[in-house]
Formats: sequence, C-alpha cells, structure tokens
Amino acid sequence: MDVAIVGAGRVGTALATRLSAAGHNIVHRITRDSSSLLVDAPTCQLIVLSVPDPQLSDVVTALAPHVKRGHIVLHTSGAHGLDILDPIETTGAIVLAMHPIMTFVGGPEDASNLEGCYWGVTTTDELSDTIAELLVAELGGQMIRVSNNKRVAYHAALAYASNYTATVLSDARAQLADALQGSEDAAARVLRPLVEASIRNVLEAGPDAITGPAARDDVAMVQRHMGAIDDAGRRQAYRELARRTAELTGAHDVELWAHTGEQH
Amino acid sequence: MDVAIVGAGRVGTALATRLSAAGHNIVHRITRDSSSLLVDAPTCQLIVLSVPDPQLSDVVTALAPHVKRGHIVLHTSGAHGLDILDPIETTGAIVLAMHPIMTFVGGPEDASNLEGCYWGVTTTDELSDTIAELLVAELGGQMIRVSNNKRVAYHAALAYASNYTATVLSDARAQLADALQGSEDAAARVLRPLVEASIRNVLEAGPDAITGPAARDDVAMVQRHMGAIDDAGRRQAYRELARRTAELTGAHDVELWAHTGEQH
Repeated sequence: MDVAIVGAGRVGTALATRLSAAGHNIVHRITRDSSSLLVDAPTCQLIVLSVPDPQLSDVVTALAPHVKRGHIVLHTSGAHGLDILDPIETTGAIVLAMHPIMTFVGGPEDASNLEGCYWGVTTTDELSDTIAELLVAELGGQMIRVSNNKRVAYHAALAYASNYTATVLSDARAQLADALQGSEDAAARVLRPLVEASIRNVLEAGPDAITGPAARDDVAMVQRHMGAIDDAGRRQAYRELARRTAELTGAHDVELWAHTGEQH
Repeated sequence: MDVAIVGAGRVGTALATRLSAAGHNIVHRITRDSSSLLVDAPTCQLIVLSVPDPQLSDVVTALAPHVKRGHIVLHTSGAHGLDILDPIETTGAIVLAMHPIMTFVGGPEDASNLEGCYWGVTTTDELSDTIAELLVAELGGQMIRVSNNKRVAYHAALAYASNYTATVLSDARAQLADALQGSEDAAARVLRPLVEASIRNVLEAGPDAITGPAARDDVAMVQRHMGAIDDAGRRQAYRELARRTAELTGAHDVELWAHTGEQH
C-alpha cells in the first residue's frame, strides 16, 4: 500500500518506521515546510494526518479538495473525533480517528512501543471499522472503540494515566534526591521497584490499593510531610493529592484538613 | 538467629516469611492482643517492631525495660528515625531504623516483593551500619542510607511515588471506564502499556519526559478535558495537576489559567 504521512513529529515518525517494516511504501512524508505537497498525497491509498491538534483543522481544509472516494484518511489525535474530518468525509473517502494510546519520546523505542499498543478508534460505519481493525493489526496493536462524543473524556483519562503520573513521579524523584542528598538518577533507581508494585496493585484494585498516611487518615503525618517539602509548588500539589486520596479512600480527617487547614 | 516480630500487619508478616525462608527462627509473633508477651521478646537476639506509626512510641516504652546490650532492635517505620528508639538505645542495645521501600497488600507477593527491595536505613554508628547491611542482604534487599533528620522528607517522597501515583491512576482507570462505557478492569488493561512507558520515561528523564496538553501549554485542550470530567473531586485534582505540570514544564498560559481560571 502507498502511504502519505502528514506531520514530521514523533507519532508520524514511529508510524512510518512501523509501516515500512510491514512492507508498505511511505511515498510522502509531508512536513509543515512542504505543505504544498499536500496536493501529491492523494496519489497514495492511505493518508495519515499526524499533526499537532491545533493544526489539524487547517491541514484537513487544505487536503479536502484533493481526496476522493477510494482514499483512506485517518488522524492520530486523541481528543478529536470524526467531526474535524467532515470536509474529507463529504468527498466519499473513508475517514478514521485512530489514536495510539502510548507516549512518544522521539527515540527508536517509539516504533517498538507500538507493538502491543492499544489504539482508541472512532469510525463512521461497518466498512471503516473493518479497515481500522486491519490497520491496527498491521501495526501490531489492539483496537479499542471510542464513541465520537466520548473522545475528550477518553483523552482526559489518558492525560491522568500518562502526563500526570509523570508529573507526580517527577516530584517524587526530585524530593527523594533532596532527602538522600544524592542524584536524581540514584533516586529513580530506588523508586522503580516501589512504583512498579504500586501501579500493578492499583490497576488491579483501584482505590482499594491506595496506602499511606492520607489513606489511613493520619493527619499528623500528612502535616509532617508538608513541613518536610521545601518547594512551595510541590507542597501545593501534595495538599491536593492528599485531599483527593482522602476523598477516594474515605479518610475524613485528612479531607477536612485539606479543605480547611484544620484538624477535626 | 532467634527473632521476635512485634506487629501482626503486612510488613511483619512479609518479614516473618522471608526470615524463616532464610533459616531464622521466628520465636515470637507478638500482636496487640498478646502484648504481655513483650517481656518474652528479649529471649531473641533480634526484635523487629512492625507496628503502625501511632503505636510505635508505646511499644518502645513497654519493651525498653526488658532489653539490654547484645540485643538488636529495629523498627520498620518510614517517617520515624532513631529518636523514637532512645529509651532502648540507652540500655546499650543496637538500634536501627530499617524501612522497606515497598508497598504491601496483604498477599503472598508481599514476601517475594522483598527480593531486590531497597531499604531506607538510619543507624547510630559503624557497628550498627554493618549489622543493618547484613540484615538487608539476608532479606534479599539493598540498603540506602537516610540521615536521621531527613526521614520525613524521604517518607514524603515515597508517598508521592506510591500513594499519589495510585490515586492518579485510580482516577485514570475510573475516567477511562466511564469514557469507554466499559469495566474498570478493561480500562486497566488498556492503560497498562501507556503507564509503563510513561514511568520508564519519567524515572529516566524527569520533567523533560512529561508530555500532553498541559506540558505543551494548550489551555484550550486542558479546558476541554475539564469539561469532560463529570466527577467534581476528580476535576479539582485535574486542575491542580495541570497547574503543577505547567509549573514543572514552563507552560505559562496553563499555569495562569489554573491560578485564575482565565486565559492569557
């Protein structure tokens, strides 16, 4: 299959690597600098739009006059569904929203991380659903269907799982390096087994797997922790995380303390 | 070696399993209900105090009159250092603060999770440091030295890494189950590869590995996420996590929005 990939970013690069390895021809890599090439993309059967969310609408508008029935056009945005592809759908082309549920760092692991990766997919009908299933399988992944009107809620969940987990662990790493008066690399090594056990437990059991001072309603210890965090921004995040932890685990004293700064 | 373990909780149980497997005799398991047995503990060379933090001081007070030079007494509390063991140290016994950097769920995996586990250890002198090193090695672990006055800062870092990571992932799991109109188990399966890649990246690179709308200063998307989160407590946590993410990544518009609710 001849493929055009619009977008020079991490996702486009990983997909190009993976599709090439599966025997497809990446005929065009169209970047912002070569956007006039958009008129050439329709020589390909498959056109992949992997551009930053804010640019997607403009790319669709530029591409729409050049596509027709028989083309498959997909975007890899998480939050967008099919609406943004309307100008293309009206040409009779197949449109898909096909989002890899993975984080991409710009290295060779990006392509290999696609192996076994889940894809959040929204389609218009049975035919496009079948095509999506074939494409996802070709990429070594597994397909998850997302309703068009649930894309943003779905994407918000992934922000929690990926971005905010990373934020919390950045703070953990820096706080531990301070406490041990050592490097952040050394702190990361110490944290790894604990973090891996914690995520295994919580993915299995949800809030029942949350342990520690906030979950066992130990206001005194939560307050001592706050007193031992020097960074003001980190301390503010700590307080809110203690509050949410208490809310999820029914730790009423910590919840009250987080709201009011007072103990029961 | 004859060992007495005070405390019937998860940590004490895992240590008993592990020490038995290493060929030691667990002579006493002393629980709250059998606290009169504290007078018998000193027939053992090693006395392990694995009780909840709020009870530790009372246990030390009850035990102190019965120990003497030649005993080794350790506690497994994370936040407490050596001060709480003062009444025992004055008897001439060796005292250690020896905290397993692990989360315990009350199952058989608790004992196996001690293999390769790091221990945060605080000791009084070279002899007690050597003893701690031998004990940690015997338990299959690795020793990390924590200054006595840094124990709370150290413990706060672990709360981030374990408890608050679990809180964020509980919300991710529930939010994704809602969005996919599926079960939390199914949502957890979808999240696992993403979460594993994210923690690998962030433990290696810190804040540089944080991606997503808040990190790339996309206020519009952060606001759309907020609009797609129905649970008010989850939404409040989302806002603070977006703020902290923006602070760590220099995303000024999102930071301002989180503070004021307004866009630049």
